[in-house]
Amino acid sequence: MDRRLSFLARLAQPAASKLVLLVLDGVGDLRTAEQPRTALDLARLPHLDALAGRSALGRIVPVAAGITPGSGPGHLALFGYDPTTPEADIGRGVLEALGSGLALKPGDIAARGNFATADAAGNLTDRRAGRIPTEECRRLVDKLRAALVHQPIAGLEVEIDPGEGHRFVLVLRGEGLSPAVADTDPQQLGVPPLTATASAPEGDATAARLRQLLPVLEAAIADETKANRLLLRGFSVLPHLPSMVEMYRMRCGAFAGYPLYRGVAAACGMTVVPCGKRVGETIEQVARCWPDFDFFFLHVKQTDQAGEDGDVAAKVRVLEEVDAALPQLLALGPDVVAVTGDHSTPAPMKAHSWHPVPLLLHSQICFMDQATEFSEVSATGGHLGTFPSHDLLALMLANGGRLRKYGA
Amino acid sequence: MDRRLSFLARLAQPAASKLVLLVLDGVGDLRTAEQPRTALDLARLPHLDALAGRSALGRIVPVAAGITPGSGPGHLALFGYDPTTPEADIGRGVLEALGSGLALKPGDIAARGNFATADAAGNLTDRRAGRIPTEECRRLVDKLRAALVHQPIAGLEVEIDPGEGHRFVLVLRGEGLSPAVADTDPQQLGVPPLTATASAPEGDATAARLRQLLPVLEAAIADETKANRLLLRGFSVLPHLPSMVEMYRMRCGAFAGYPLYRGVAAACGMTVVPCGKRVGETIEQVARCWPDFDFFFLHVKQTDQAGEDGDVAAKVRVLEEVDAALPQLLALGPDVVAVTGDHSTPAPMKAHSWHPVPLLLHSQICFMDQATEFSEVSATGGHLGTFPSHDLLALMLANGGRLRKYGA
Repeated sequence: MDRRLSFLARLAQPAASKLVLLVLDGVGDLRTAEQPRTALDLARLPHLDALAGRSALGRIVPVAAGITPGSGPGHLALFGYDPTTPEADIGRGVLEALGSGLALKPGDIAARGNFATADAAGNLTDRRAGRIPTEECRRLVDKLRAALVHQPIAGLEVEIDPGEGHRFVLVLRGEGLSPAVADTDPQQLGVPPLTATASAPEGDATAARLRQLLPVLEAAIADETKANRLLLRGFSVLPHLPSMVEMYRMRCGAFAGYPLYRGVAAACGMTVVPCGKRVGETIEQVARCWPDFDFFFLHVKQTDQAGEDGDVAAKVRVLEEVDAALPQLLALGPDVVAVTGDHSTPAPMKAHSWHPVPLLLHSQICFMDQATEFSEVSATGGHLGTFPSHDLLALMLANGGRLRKYGA
Repeated sequence: MDRRLSFLARLAQPAASKLVLLVLDGVGDLRTAEQPRTALDLARLPHLDALAGRSALGRIVPVAAGITPGSGPGHLALFGYDPTTPEADIGRGVLEALGSGLALKPGDIAARGNFATADAAGNLTDRRAGRIPTEECRRLVDKLRAALVHQPIAGLEVEIDPGEGHRFVLVLRGEGLSPAVADTDPQQLGVPPLTATASAPEGDATAARLRQLLPVLEAAIADETKANRLLLRGFSVLPHLPSMVEMYRMRCGAFAGYPLYRGVAAACGMTVVPCGKRVGETIEQVARCWPDFDFFFLHVKQTDQAGEDGDVAAKVRVLEEVDAALPQLLALGPDVVAVTGDHSTPAPMKAHSWHPVPLLLHSQICFMDQATEFSEVSATGGHLGTFPSHDLLALMLANGGRLRKYGA
């Protein structure tokens, strides 16, 4: 645990307060010559604006100046971790496995898999197998499992779990395994999948096992027209993250409709609660679980998706959907509410970016600043100033009476 | 000495400038739904506002985001120290001893004492002995000292000093002593004082000596109706703080009416100058000592007391008292003046808090920003921005021409 986190953990105390962190993924947007108003500027947000009038605004910087975060680092920072430390480096395979609800053990190697299509010459023609439906994925995973029953690999325990569409998760257990294995996905068409190779010497044994395993698995689907090859990415092991529950001394529930965010939350020690993908469903589930947790992480994915699509109108629609659902969340009576994002996904960029993310923090003692709307510009002049995302959780704890005084 | 401080010390140079740090303890306040204006908003502060018009404003964060500091860490940060380092962890006993003007030596163990009242069964009925007057405290300390003359504890040198009201300081000197002793104050009534016990193995010998010492002392006051028991807290030794005088190459004088603040200043190497409790008296004493120091730390306690009482009107009155006295301070012609607090003590919270503290910094070269009043909100938009309290002293030095250029 780094010095800042252990300092925080030392001061954390239980309290009766309820804390809500509503993450609008990629909410931050840009004003450009072509798009002079951001999605937050354009959206009609009567409830968020009213809440802003009773709140303190500010901005958070996810990783560091100029650094564009992926979803993992973006969320780890929101949960209080320094996303640049080695222990906060969660691999994609582990995120996918945790997000699917697999109970990974220390040392388990997880990889993210795609079913893919290759032609008769073995060259890839579709890296996502025509985005086969999820039921099709389940059927295929059953074939892979059956193959392993008939031809097990000595000393290697293999778990395969279907994901959404063409995606699956592969977990390897056994002596002497290492995640130091390169992706087998060549990231291009017209070539065959790559042979499993080590990315560092300690991965040699694991790569050798994969070179035994993959032919067995691929033989089982060789007769498929679409999903006849496998691509593996993001070999990784469970990181050693200190648990939020222990550090902050509160029960933490994660309410996210997508696997990756559930995965990050689980890696931080949160309890992952199944819920739907729309914000209304998420809030309904939160309401059902209101007595069970002290800290509620709510994830809204569609703001990011709209940003990635460069569709500012879609981003506005999602924001207005969130705004309409907000009263239902506030009716639960949370003591502390933070509304922000894990990073910006400006529509003009169609991608994640490094720009500071607007933040709204509400409690009875947050300092009611002069801001009366929730937007990038109003947040810039807010009471909270601009600060690292990893400090937000300490502010939420403080507002919830969950940090003791430091020193006499 | 940490890296930041040794960097600063390397660049510090003497100069003819006079620096004044006026600490309005707990000055920062809140805007809430119930209290829409802070004490600074409400107070009429013509002199502070006029000074703000010629100054740069900003805000300081005492320890870290969300961390509520005690007075010790809050002041250490103002004096340039990182209050989260172990060497900056000053115990309450040491603060009290230094504040009372005791010359502690390295290795001396200091504890903060209370006279208390117990009933015939030995159970506490008042942990402050009815808040006896200070003269009464002096009489009782004389009885304790006399008892020690008759019954000294072998190998243990004991110094007892009366404080204000029911408070006293106990200092132990001798071979093999350690501050690893738990408080004997049970922090509740209806039970006897706790027996002295070690809080870690190295405190065993010290606890054993205390179990010899305390019965001797308490026997001497057993006939008292009110102050018939002793409670000890905060066993501690002098921390190894580098001296401000040596680091910053300036003569530092502390002008504080209350022991704890004198104690912190003394631990940092400042000369403690006796002075009264009201800001007018403090400034008069500063005027008398004007040729003797380069850096003047002035402490105003009553802003914090009003905040702790939740009495915003009283806080306003103290601020107006400070404002009325300000011209007398400015008439001395200081080159650099900083007005700020060691932390916020918002009246709505009746307690210290983590909220950033407004700062006014005046010199001829401070950058005269657009702020024309001294308040939380005007400070938020000021030239100095929001930064850690421990960086303020470097800014004061720079404005006073006391830091050399770094590099060619």
